[in-house]
Amino acid sequence: MAAAAEFIKGNEPYAAQFGDKKSLVISPRKCVAIVTCMDGRLDPAAHLGLKEGDAAVIRNAGGLVSEALRSLIISQRLLGTREVAVFHHTDCGMLHFNTPQLRNIVKDAAPGDADIAARIDAIDFHEFSDVEESIKKDVEWLKEQPLIPEDIAITGWVYEVETGKVRQVV
Amino acid sequence: MAAAAEFIKGNEPYAAQFGDKKSLVISPRKCVAIVTCMDGRLDPAAHLGLKEGDAAVIRNAGGLVSEALRSLIISQRLLGTREVAVFHHTDCGMLHFNTPQLRNIVKDAAPGDADIAARIDAIDFHEFSDVEESIKKDVEWLKEQPLIPEDIAITGWVYEVETGKVRQVV
Repeated sequence: MAAAAEFIKGNEPYAAQFGDKKSLVISPRKCVAIVTCMDGRLDPAAHLGLKEGDAAVIRNAGGLVSEALRSLIISQRLLGTREVAVFHHTDCGMLHFNTPQLRNIVKDAAPGDADIAARIDAIDFHEFSDVEESIKKDVEWLKEQPLIPEDIAITGWVYEVETGKVRQVV
Repeated sequence: MAAAAEFIKGNEPYAAQFGDKKSLVISPRKCVAIVTCMDGRLDPAAHLGLKEGDAAVIRNAGGLVSEALRSLIISQRLLGTREVAVFHHTDCGMLHFNTPQLRNIVKDAAPGDADIAARIDAIDFHEFSDVEESIKKDVEWLKEQPLIPEDIAITGWVYEVETGKVRQVV
């Protein structure tokens, strides 16, 4: 647990300068929810110039919106967000594998284990082959999703891990 | 789209000082995946002293590990992470509502719409009533999950929105 062992020390400077952040409220100030990838190279607050309290941030492998639906409903219906901004990024891990390959990796690590085989075969990893197409597809999915109110503004973006820049796709 | 309109401007200082971050690689340097809440008051990189490239960060409403499973498998089997650190936090939105209430809010906004009623009734929002109990439960769920290798180190933490401090629970 090398990383976890460093968290207390890593947290000390932040807590020492916490100051008036203690008065932040639960509803995001900018009324926006951001959906983006879990990739360690991304720091959404830093690369969008956001401060604590500004935006809800949902992250998963790829920045998959269907997996974010539960969170988005909570964010919209209970916390007052009125926008969703979806970010995918260049060199995403989702571009570098496919579901059958990953299922085989897991099954090869537990040969003959029928329970593990059944569990991994039940998961679609939602890889994609083109980041702009995947953004368009995810924005379209959200716009057609009956549980997302029609007046929620939805935009789609690419973050470039090579330049640190964001660009709007849709 | 007031928030989205500010992203390009908010991104400029970051991209201008991007420098050697362009050489970061896809696998997290600290071999750790962090699961935490989408809450806008949380800035996991800042409050753990992490830099870009250090850790995969998965965020959803509450920091629910079952919803993070797809991402964790990708992170462990393809990107080499060997630890999971789960963070829930004080004053979480998940403490302030329950699934039947939220379903009613959505149904009341679309009276008589059977499609919306069926869709929202199919979603469990996974609220909880005690943050330390919810952390213990989520860590236990991960430890018992057959698709998570047994040698993955798993820790559970609370982040305090009142102080900016983290504390380990399990």
